[in-house]
Order: sequence, then structure tokens, then C-alpha cells
Amino acid sequence: MGTGNVAKNLFDTFMGIKDVEVVQVIGRNKTALRAFEKVGNTSSDFADILDADIFIIAVSDDAIGKVSKFLRNKKGLIVHTSGSVSMDVLSNCKSYGVFYPLQTFSKDGKVDMMSVPLCLEAHDPADLDFLKQLAGKITENVYKIDSEQREALHLAAVFVNNFTNHLFYIGQQICHDKALAFDILYPLIHKTVDKLVRSAPYDAQTGPARRGDSETIEKHLEQLENSEFKEVYSTLNESIRKLYDTGKDKNLQHS
Amino acid sequence: MGTGNVAKNLFDTFMGIKDVEVVQVIGRNKTALRAFEKVGNTSSDFADILDADIFIIAVSDDAIGKVSKFLRNKKGLIVHTSGSVSMDVLSNCKSYGVFYPLQTFSKDGKVDMMSVPLCLEAHDPADLDFLKQLAGKITENVYKIDSEQREALHLAAVFVNNFTNHLFYIGQQICHDKALAFDILYPLIHKTVDKLVRSAPYDAQTGPARRGDSETIEKHLEQLENSEFKEVYSTLNESIRKLYDTGKDKNLQHS
Repeated sequence: MGTGNVAKNLFDTFMGIKDVEVVQVIGRNKTALRAFEKVGNTSSDFADILDADIFIIAVSDDAIGKVSKFLRNKKGLIVHTSGSVSMDVLSNCKSYGVFYPLQTFSKDGKVDMMSVPLCLEAHDPADLDFLKQLAGKITENVYKIDSEQREALHLAAVFVNNFTNHLFYIGQQICHDKALAFDILYPLIHKTVDKLVRSAPYDAQTGPARRGDSETIEKHLEQLENSEFKEVYSTLNESIRKLYDTGKDKNLQHS
Repeated sequence: MGTGNVAKNLFDTFMGIKDVEVVQVIGRNKTALRAFEKVGNTSSDFADILDADIFIIAVSDDAIGKVSKFLRNKKGLIVHTSGSVSMDVLSNCKSYGVFYPLQTFSKDGKVDMMSVPLCLEAHDPADLDFLKQLAGKITENVYKIDSEQREALHLAAVFVNNFTNHLFYIGQQICHDKALAFDILYPLIHKTVDKLVRSAPYDAQTGPARRGDSETIEKHLEQLENSEFKEVYSTLNESIRKLYDTGKDKNLQHS
């Protein structure tokens, strides 16, 4: 169910797995459905759902409940793929769970699902086993994650993915304003990420806020002409400063 | 001049290059000096500087001016290695410039200097040629960058490195609070960075703020118990929201 980025990536992945038969793809958007035509059956009518062992609802968060109503009487396992919606939204179905790929799916291309962690949850232990089997055909990164944990993961993902990308945007704009190519910063960006394997982020922190170098901070704030960027700078700076000043959460540094 | 992380990384690199002779290492900190003993001459006395073709001042920003006073009458080229200090701090020297490695050097280990962009500046064109030659022995990533550009780079580096690392810290804490291993998020973090090569950050942006998904944003703010994290969330969220709402800077999206 669904024709968006998650649906398309799961579709392409399952179509490449011998043991898995994609029975049908359903989506309201007829144009988008065309990308799924190599499967035997596509339909834009949710009243027209064929039987299957599992029904994967890969639609926008607020449509999951609506779509699930069409599946209420199905015998198979009903799962959604959302990071932030509780499993209970499907509790009117007979068997239900969650099949959440923790990755950013945008229109810019195919994602290698082998490297994507699959976070699974099911109301019934037997259903969880079934989900594990299915997920195991795609990747070794399979995790049993309950709804509360999944919501936390989704929130953490906003920080490490969405917000990080926005910081990259700001960095690029700062470079652009001085006729600098942003790719000068790529090695530094890669290093920032590579460090994660060796050091906890708490220990890896460097920079003027960590050092308490208020002279550099003042200079940076003067340099920043964009008031939004100034605001982002001040807020993150302050958050770092407080963290190392107070020693708060220091006991978690290696966790 | 200097015994910190930048000095140590440059030292180790130059010691491995046949054509380059490290004449002397000078630093106040006698304990730190020990790590440099495989060079013929170390000294903690800045009045005791031997002659050389180039003098590299790799000390903290606020000490550069002070150290440069000991080099005023030297014939060789005097450079500092700082991202945020103007070249002019050395203008009392005969020949001067900047040799800025754009990387984060922390105590956690050796940096492969081959992948580090070296940003060069010199008052005299012949000195710049000399710096280029020296830098070219270390890496192919050599850039001529003036002081204003270097300051911008340093500021951009704070966003893409220091602040990004802090976001990783927050992500890790959110995971920790729900007994989740942070490494579930590594594939997503890697994807965030890998995208840079294919898409401008402006185009790659995803998430609730980009979508204008205020329901998820509300939920996230409720989830965040730490008031600092809440503040970071709100500020970055707002910055993204405004960027895509107003369409401001859209003409720069591919730059």
C-alpha cells in the first residue's frame, strides 16, 4: 500500500528476492503506480486488495489509520513502515506490527537496503518471527524495537540526519558567500563521522564553545550576517558551553 | 613552534618526508616536547631558535603574536597554522604567510594528512610558491585562500564539524535514554554525508520541518525532556521552516 519513496525502495528490494512474491501494489496516485507495473497487479482501489501473507502500509503517517480500515478483515499480517506512529494505530486489524526501515528515502535515488537497519515490532511473537524472517532476507541489521524506542529513534534521526543536513547547508552558504567551493570541507565532514567509531561524541567535541574561546565566538557572530544562521550558531554554542561547563551527563560520555 | 595536536601531526608528517628536514621543535611545555625528541633538536627556550627556511607557528591563536616576536629577525618564512587569525598578525616579520590544515586535530590519534586540505596564504608571491611546494609534498588538496576566506572556512567548519558532532551527542543521548545502541543510526549518518556528493544540502533536506509536519514536531518537543535539546530542536526546526517557507536563497541551492 503506497507509492512513495519508502514503498518504491521496498518494492524494488522485494522484487529482487526470489523467495518473496510481491502480490499487488495499491496506491491512489495512478501516475506513481506506473513505476510499479512490473508486478502482476496494481490497483488504485483500496477496496480491491488481494489476499497475502503480509500487507505493508507505506503511506504518509496520517493516512496509515485510514488505509488500515481496508485491511481489517484480512488474515495476513498488517504492518506500517513509519518511525513515529505507534503500532496501536493498527489495533483494529487481526495481526499487526511495524516494519520500519531507519533510513532517509528521498527522490534522489535508490537506497541499498542491505545497509538499512530494519526495526521490527509485532503484537504477537509468532508475527515477530515472521517479520524477522522477511527482514533477514534483506539485511543483517534487524532490530526488535518497541513503539516507544522507535519514536526515540525517529527523533534522534531528526538530529543526526535532518539537522545535520541543515548545518551542511549553512556551511555551504558561508563558503559560497566568499567564493569558496564547499567540497574543501568534505574531508573534515568525513572525519567528523569517522570519529564516531573510535570516540563518543562527548569526547570528540572540539571548537570554540568547548574551549570556552569567547573571542572566537564573538568574531564568528560578527561574521554571520544571516540572522537565522546567527540564531543557530548561538543556540548550539550555548548548548555545548553548558554541557562542558556543568559537567552534566558526563557519566554518559562513554555510553 | 608548538607541541599541541596540530604541531604533532605536522611533525609526524614532515618526519616521514625525505626532502624535508625538521630542524628543531620549540615549545614551553617540556613534557609535551618529549614526543618530538626523535628530531635532533628540541628546546623550551624561544630565544634559542635555530635558522631554517620556514618557521611554523602551531600554537594557540592568542599566542601567535607573542611567539612571532622571537622570529622578527629571522630570514626564513614565518607562517601560522590557524583558521581564524589573520595573516597580518605576523606583519612584523620579514616574510610571512599562513599554512592552515583544515581538519580537526584531537588527542584521539593521528590524522592522515594526505586527505587534509592545506589552505595557503603568503604576503609575497615567491613565498606562496614555496608554501605550495612544501604543501604539495603532503597532499594534493592545496588551496590558495586569503585571510577573509580562511575565516569563513573556519566558521563553516564550526557548523559542519563542531555543531554536527554536538547533534550526534544529542542523538546518542536520546538513544541512551531508551536503551538503544547509537550505532543503529550509523547507516543513516553515513547516508547523510554520502548524499553531499550527489545533491546540494538544500535539495537533500528531508524531515518534519521541511514537510511542515507540525503534528510530528509537537510530538518531538513533548518527547524531549532536556530543555537544552528542546532549544536546539526548536531553533534548527525554525531555521529549516523559514528557509523552505520563504524560498529565500533558493537561487543558491545548486551553488
